[in-house]
Amino acid sequence: MFQVRTDLAMEARELYQESKQQEISGVSVEQEELKDIKITRVEVLNDEAAQVMGKPKGSYITLECLGLRKTDADLKDEVSQVLAKEIKELIGKKDKLRALVVGLGNWNITPDALGPKVISKVYVTRHLFQMYNKESDQDLAEISAISPGVMGTTGVETGEIIKGIVEKTKPDLVVAVDALASRKMERVNSTIQISNTGISPGSGVGNKRQSLNQETLGVPVIAVGVPTVVDAATLTSDTIDLVIEAFTRQSSKGSDFYKMLMDLKDDEKYSLIREILEPYNANVMVTPKDIDEVITNLSQIIANAINIALHPGIDLKDVNRYIH
Amino acid sequence: MFQVRTDLAMEARELYQESKQQEISGVSVEQEELKDIKITRVEVLNDEAAQVMGKPKGSYITLECLGLRKTDADLKDEVSQVLAKEIKELIGKKDKLRALVVGLGNWNITPDALGPKVISKVYVTRHLFQMYNKESDQDLAEISAISPGVMGTTGVETGEIIKGIVEKTKPDLVVAVDALASRKMERVNSTIQISNTGISPGSGVGNKRQSLNQETLGVPVIAVGVPTVVDAATLTSDTIDLVIEAFTRQSSKGSDFYKMLMDLKDDEKYSLIREILEPYNANVMVTPKDIDEVITNLSQIIANAINIALHPGIDLKDVNRYIH
Amino acid sequence: MFQVRTDLAMEARELYQESKQQEISGVSVEQEELKDIKITRVEVLNDEAAQVMGKPKGSYITLECLGLRKTDADLKDEVSQVLAKEIKELIGKKDKLRALVVGLGNWNITPDALGPKVISKVYVTRHLFQMYNKESDQDLAEISAISPGVMGTTGVETGEIIKGIVEKTKPDLVVAVDALASRKMERVNSTIQISNTGISPGSGVGNKRQSLNQETLGVPVIAVGVPTVVDAATLTSDTIDLVIEAFTRQSSKGSDFYKMLMDLKDDEKYSLIREILEPYNANVMVTPKDIDEVITNLSQIIANAINIALHPGIDLKDVNRYIH
Amino acid sequence: MFQVRTDLAMEARELYQESKQQEISGVSVEQEELKDIKITRVEVLNDEAAQVMGKPKGSYITLECLGLRKTDADLKDEVSQVLAKEIKELIGKKDKLRALVVGLGNWNITPDALGPKVISKVYVTRHLFQMYNKESDQDLAEISAISPGVMGTTGVETGEIIKGIVEKTKPDLVVAVDALASRKMERVNSTIQISNTGISPGSGVGNKRQSLNQETLGVPVIAVGVPTVVDAATLTSDTIDLVIEAFTRQSSKGSDFYKMLMDLKDDEKYSLIREILEPYNANVMVTPKDIDEVITNLSQIIANAINIALHPGIDLKDVNRYIH
Repeated sequence: MFQVRTDLAMEARELYQESKQQEISGVSVEQEELKDIKITRVEVLNDEAAQVMGKPKGSYITLECLGLRKTDADLKDEVSQVLAKEIKELIGKKDKLRALVVGLGNWNITPDALGPKVISKVYVTRHLFQMYNKESDQDLAEISAISPGVMGTTGVETGEIIKGIVEKTKPDLVVAVDALASRKMERVNSTIQISNTGISPGSGVGNKRQSLNQETLGVPVIAVGVPTVVDAATLTSDTIDLVIEAFTRQSSKGSDFYKMLMDLKDDEKYSLIREILEPYNANVMVTPKDIDEVITNLSQIIANAINIALHPGIDLKDVNRYIH
Repeated sequence: MFQVRTDLAMEARELYQESKQQEISGVSVEQEELKDIKITRVEVLNDEAAQVMGKPKGSYITLECLGLRKTDADLKDEVSQVLAKEIKELIGKKDKLRALVVGLGNWNITPDALGPKVISKVYVTRHLFQMYNKESDQDLAEISAISPGVMGTTGVETGEIIKGIVEKTKPDLVVAVDALASRKMERVNSTIQISNTGISPGSGVGNKRQSLNQETLGVPVIAVGVPTVVDAATLTSDTIDLVIEAFTRQSSKGSDFYKMLMDLKDDEKYSLIREILEPYNANVMVTPKDIDEVITNLSQIIANAINIALHPGIDLKDVNRYIH
Repeated sequence: MFQVRTDLAMEARELYQESKQQEISGVSVEQEELKDIKITRVEVLNDEAAQVMGKPKGSYITLECLGLRKTDADLKDEVSQVLAKEIKELIGKKDKLRALVVGLGNWNITPDALGPKVISKVYVTRHLFQMYNKESDQDLAEISAISPGVMGTTGVETGEIIKGIVEKTKPDLVVAVDALASRKMERVNSTIQISNTGISPGSGVGNKRQSLNQETLGVPVIAVGVPTVVDAATLTSDTIDLVIEAFTRQSSKGSDFYKMLMDLKDDEKYSLIREILEPYNANVMVTPKDIDEVITNLSQIIANAINIALHPGIDLKDVNRYIH
Repeated sequence: MFQVRTDLAMEARELYQESKQQEISGVSVEQEELKDIKITRVEVLNDEAAQVMGKPKGSYITLECLGLRKTDADLKDEVSQVLAKEIKELIGKKDKLRALVVGLGNWNITPDALGPKVISKVYVTRHLFQMYNKESDQDLAEISAISPGVMGTTGVETGEIIKGIVEKTKPDLVVAVDALASRKMERVNSTIQISNTGISPGSGVGNKRQSLNQETLGVPVIAVGVPTVVDAATLTSDTIDLVIEAFTRQSSKGSDFYKMLMDLKDDEKYSLIREILEPYNANVMVTPKDIDEVITNLSQIIANAINIALHPGIDLKDVNRYIH
């Protein structure tokens, strides 16, 4: 059976295509190229497709932009706006929006701190609505935000904590921000995925086992994620494929091994490599050297996008000028 | 009316004594001197005393130890053990303890990050109990821990968040760790207060307005706090008193002004100074230069004490050897 | 004798004026108001004025902009450009500029970390000139940068370290960035001073005792500084003045004490307060709560200004787009 | 020709042995097993051996201790003392020692920040000797310390900066602390190497191209290093070897490819893999997730060892009690 170890729907689909040489039935894909950003919209249309993809039914939108890793103020603004527009479309029209923004991940591990860093830049207003006994506002949505930590440091399933807060504060919507894992180094810190399917237990940076979605929380969950690491086994597995390809191109010597390896199912190969790496790579991650700065930039871009998308009266000018 | 701006019960009592030249009725005070640590036990015995003190009825234990600001491994161990013993006594005998440790404060403001830093060093086990379907353990209590953030960044009263988690996870006890404000620079980072009365809205570093106590959460709340700042108005007010004293000692010239100032009620003087400082000190704090290192040390001491106090089979050797 | 404890020339002059009710002879002052920035240019013209001011002969330019404390992208850009222009004018026309940028201060103490943080964002090129054996470049100056630390952590006078590096690398110019102390809370983090007189031993955040100037280093030294703290004694001293003023306005009771205090020389008063505060405020600083974020923003503004001012082919667009 | 990409002499020797199935002539190896620590002493005795090893003639002592990654206070103390003893032996008897401790590496990249972090904990005294005009002291050596940064951020060869400071301050000895690269994940953060040959341009975390040794600085240079990363190409290359071994053991299918790969010289294989990884792994590192905490612990251990080794009157009790 085909199985994937990626949080990105577009990678899951890519892997299926590479492996089976055909499109997944029940999945629609649409691409759009802006100046600096490539948008891929994947729709998982039925349960069968969901099972093959390993992703729930729903919409997955990926923004790819290599420039994200650099500090380019104009490009950051452009990505924030495109991201805000996509988030708005996923939410749909809402009057008097009351949303809880959740930053998943561990703030003590840099590549997992994306969620908590975004939370610290979200423009929260719920306490002001309460303080002034306001029901609604023309410019501002009623926003709360929390970084609950991870199960390893709290001892509590993150889903339980969020569920408790949702029951107390009764938002209409949850926006969950998380660091993801990708299969490809080239996508690390250069890709943002949003979806309306919530967060599923996945191969992310930490251990996040319970789903956060409409079913578990009782309100729609928009997920925003960026792959910030590749796991060592994935990197090695992919590199071996590249090495064999290179050998095969250079000479015919590699072909036997290549054939043998191709006969192996992907899962077997990955398991074998994991097993071999085990004594070495427990809790090892592969990450860029400038990860601190990259996470700071990405958290700014995503927080800006969320602020623009949720608050009806806030635009790019405001987030750069008055907020934070 | 007598009113205090301190989180420390022993200071509230001290201020009353200085002002009224008598002991508060309904308050019992007991002192104990260890080698490096001075322990003061204040009991607020009735409602009248509670009102005068501005502190709920209950027990307040203060450990004073100037050496806390230095990095002395032996002294840190000694304080952890004394603190663990006092916490154990406040909790009383418990089989199968299930506790939630709450780290209050904002991890982005160094002197307010004590609570969150302690949380990251508490030995949490609740998820392990769940994973292995265990009811109880000889050596380990069932511990969870959370740093919810502050209302300014979450938009939600911290009490509501904790209440939601308490309802979901049903602990027997909450231990709340917080950074406090003191009136006296000499107590900053050299004093630890524990009490069985929970956290009251106070003059702490951030804005923490709702009480966390048995009444609001439905379970007993042990509070552990360290003063990490003095507010600028308090510092100035106290210094002016010292200046006047010095002048008065040196010459008779100061006496008239001194008399006039002594006629002023403490509150009036403080308000006057706050008003004068207003344009200057909004969000200003007075704190030692090496606050980063001090908070790291204090969080280690308190986390060790909590780990020893809550887990029946963990002692000092274990916290230094295996935990974190 | 009149003596000042401020790193800002404009404050030294202000204090003189307040105390003597007249302008210092030998000092010229010029003000310019831009949209969001107030520029004050103080020229200390002769040795007498230098002695009265406690500042060497030369030019001192101060940019005041309350908005600096906020995160406003447009305003940051505006300040960077104005600052770049002023730095360029102080340097004068230079072909083939070779400059060493020095970040003074201790990166472990947030309000003293301004210099080191700027250094990490300066666009250094000296190694590229060396690697490609280039003599000069149309767009780029030959820039090196160092944060030597402070004497308390190195055991070496910072001046000696810089002198050693200057002798080895032979720059035409040194630009020294430092955190300063101000007398007034309102100037903290809202004021940038540049001068062509180098760094003098002063009342800054750390202990910087040796001068960095043309005389000691053999090349011109441009200093760029921002006050990031007020010392506790200064704050108290100034507040006492305000308190007395307030009392005097409210009633006649304060007048005797006021007269007595006015009779005291400023230095005596300050020394008295320092002495009284001694047990409390050793190594205490008064600083805003959001100092981490403020230092990050200021370091970006100053690094951008230095990059624009030193490299002939780099402008604002470049620093936001390609650098860092 | 045999060539290695490791900073550890013991690994260079291991690799030679694995490749050639014999001991390097001109290299002596000695091992000692303490309770928790394994000590390997490698002596490179002549120029030929130096060339084969890719390491200068001299002594290389490696402490291996898996427990280093954990926080065990007793073990940390034990390692500090063993390390101090080895450093003392390398230095030899010295009256009136004047040493400069250099922390190499970039403090903005966690796994490269070991050197700078050690520096911040070294007990520096040179300024005190100067201040009190002392020639020597019974208990204290005259110690200075600096973290110059890396060429990418300074624009100056680190060797030039250190040379400048050595000329100004004239120490008898330089102790250089650096983060290293290892070939093996299992050695990362569990191995400390000291040598009397200085720092050579190597495969370390950053780009450190110029040697720091007696020849370049004019005084003996003791190097202390810990491998904190493995580079992605090394990890992949080693894993491929393990995968092939596993395949070969499991079946005969792998044998052809294995033979082919064995025919490849090590260098060719590594270059091939680097080339293949190039678009993906520029500036990628493989590092444990808890690297922040690990670096903090290691820097404490090494700083303690240096303080004990250099100051005649300081022992373990002092470093834990009074220093930092």
